[in-house]
Amino acid sequence: MTLKNDLILRAARGEKVERVPVWLMRQAGRILPEYRAVREKLSGFRELVMTPSLAAEVTIQPVDILGVDAAIIFSDILVIPEAMGLPYEMIESKGPFFPKTIENDKDISALLGVQAADELEYVYEAIRITKKELNGRVPLIGFAGAPWTIFAYMIEGQGSKTFSKAKKFLYTEPERSKVILDKITDATIAYLRRQVEAGADMLQVFDSWANILSPEQYHEFSGVYMDRICNELNHIAPLTLFAKGAFSARTSFAKMECDVIGLDWTMDAKESRQIIGANKTVQGNLDPCALYQNSKGIEAEVKKMLDAFGTQRYIANLGHGLYPDTDKYMVKAFVDAVKEYKS
Amino acid sequence: MTLKNDLILRAARGEKVERVPVWLMRQAGRILPEYRAVREKLSGFRELVMTPSLAAEVTIQPVDILGVDAAIIFSDILVIPEAMGLPYEMIESKGPFFPKTIENDKDISALLGVQAADELEYVYEAIRITKKELNGRVPLIGFAGAPWTIFAYMIEGQGSKTFSKAKKFLYTEPERSKVILDKITDATIAYLRRQVEAGADMLQVFDSWANILSPEQYHEFSGVYMDRICNELNHIAPLTLFAKGAFSARTSFAKMECDVIGLDWTMDAKESRQIIGANKTVQGNLDPCALYQNSKGIEAEVKKMLDAFGTQRYIANLGHGLYPDTDKYMVKAFVDAVKEYKS
Repeated sequence: MTLKNDLILRAARGEKVERVPVWLMRQAGRILPEYRAVREKLSGFRELVMTPSLAAEVTIQPVDILGVDAAIIFSDILVIPEAMGLPYEMIESKGPFFPKTIENDKDISALLGVQAADELEYVYEAIRITKKELNGRVPLIGFAGAPWTIFAYMIEGQGSKTFSKAKKFLYTEPERSKVILDKITDATIAYLRRQVEAGADMLQVFDSWANILSPEQYHEFSGVYMDRICNELNHIAPLTLFAKGAFSARTSFAKMECDVIGLDWTMDAKESRQIIGANKTVQGNLDPCALYQNSKGIEAEVKKMLDAFGTQRYIANLGHGLYPDTDKYMVKAFVDAVKEYKS
Repeated sequence: MTLKNDLILRAARGEKVERVPVWLMRQAGRILPEYRAVREKLSGFRELVMTPSLAAEVTIQPVDILGVDAAIIFSDILVIPEAMGLPYEMIESKGPFFPKTIENDKDISALLGVQAADELEYVYEAIRITKKELNGRVPLIGFAGAPWTIFAYMIEGQGSKTFSKAKKFLYTEPERSKVILDKITDATIAYLRRQVEAGADMLQVFDSWANILSPEQYHEFSGVYMDRICNELNHIAPLTLFAKGAFSARTSFAKMECDVIGLDWTMDAKESRQIIGANKTVQGNLDPCALYQNSKGIEAEVKKMLDAFGTQRYIANLGHGLYPDTDKYMVKAFVDAVKEYKS
């Protein structure tokens, strides 16, 4: 099906665009009353992720309501560890919890690799329904967590400020760490490929915990796996890498076969362009808290951001997911400000 | 009193040292059984902070047990908001909680500024006892939180991953924010000065939440206050600024009247030296998780670190506070490895 709006794909590939494309990380979520209405009828977040028709419905909501230039499939990065053999629970206001983590070699061998992708039919089905219902209005983004971030949850068993248990494993069991990271990478590549086969037009890999590794460790335990993902998938769909807070990762990402590099608001536009070079598109990077302002304030921030990044090889977004208490109208003001920007 | 070991002071001032001085952030704390023995007899962390003889005792423990080149007074950055009028509780395994936060102009005017320093006699008394009992063995470091970090707790009322309430206040109430930040800065300068008068030989300012501000916001809501602290205090004691995760802050700190800039393990030694220049000392930056290794692994990491930083204008430390589950013997291995390093 021909896309009526392919701005984001053209921006990702470095083709000329007539205006800057815009979407928001976590645009499908609690900021929309329409999302909360769907969510309230269910037992929890997990049920929504695992019900394709409803996942598709909330994926499309921001396209209708906010007018964004892309949809991103409503799902969770932690479906991969679950498909590999470590189920998790999402505990309200606390976050994810894995009743079982990896403790020994038997646990490691029991993990599924490529075959894990077969367990995620519900995601592919959600993508197929979404594509059908989007009817070519905007592209659909598929996504996964970066191997290091997934590893961190699998070892730690839950969120953490320091992920010291996962990092201890890197320091004390580097070889076993690599066996696990390899398996996660296999699963992730197969999973992302299946998302594209189901209809995803573009892919994003989220390395949420990249910022807690030293540059050297980042290369060894994350970069090499990100690189493999890029090499295997870049030819089938435009690929975005996003590592919040990972200043040094920009340098390595610049050398990888990705199309887009996501930035957070602590990363300067000009400095980032300089590090990344002219052959990649950048995405970001407004502070989600900037949307607590009124529309005039938001318009000023958007202007400053677009002045700094320019209108080409650029995708407007936040530097992190939307915070749940953001006013939906101020999110709309952000989207409109990008669309109406004149340089 | 003449100091028998003034390595850290000489390193801070850029004088030649015969070996690299070493201490660890959170060296006085749960990693030491001797600390836990003192702590167990008390109702909680707050009681320890507020009992000068015991605070002095745990301050000196790592000097005796680990052989570090400096003591740092056992206290808490949140004694300042409390002295200003916002008491807090320390909730076990959850962190600080402020029953009352700043909600309106009346709350702002009620905050004490310079006078807050008068409320902290128990800290000065702990410093006096410590100095007496140290008897010149090593210098004593006094400290405070950076105004922005203190502000973040005063508005948010507790720890947070995003500090979105505090940041919302910056965006929506920039002028009121500055009034509060000014008062905190007044209180902090008076407090640090009193610590020096009581005997502190050196000062460190911790900007724990610097990393969640954009470079521009950092300048406006943190940098200018750090600058004022430096200008007012640098002539009375060597001053260290430490902002974990704040890559951009290194550039601004390099221009301030401080002597030492603290680095975390995500910041590359050579890149940091280049940004900071030859006229400042740097401190850091081993990943606390590196101490989960055995002593051979730790020695290798220390060698790598000292090779990268060099032995002059450098103070060895971690890039963050010690994690409580670190083996005390591996902390000792770290200290010894620095002391025995040969370039």
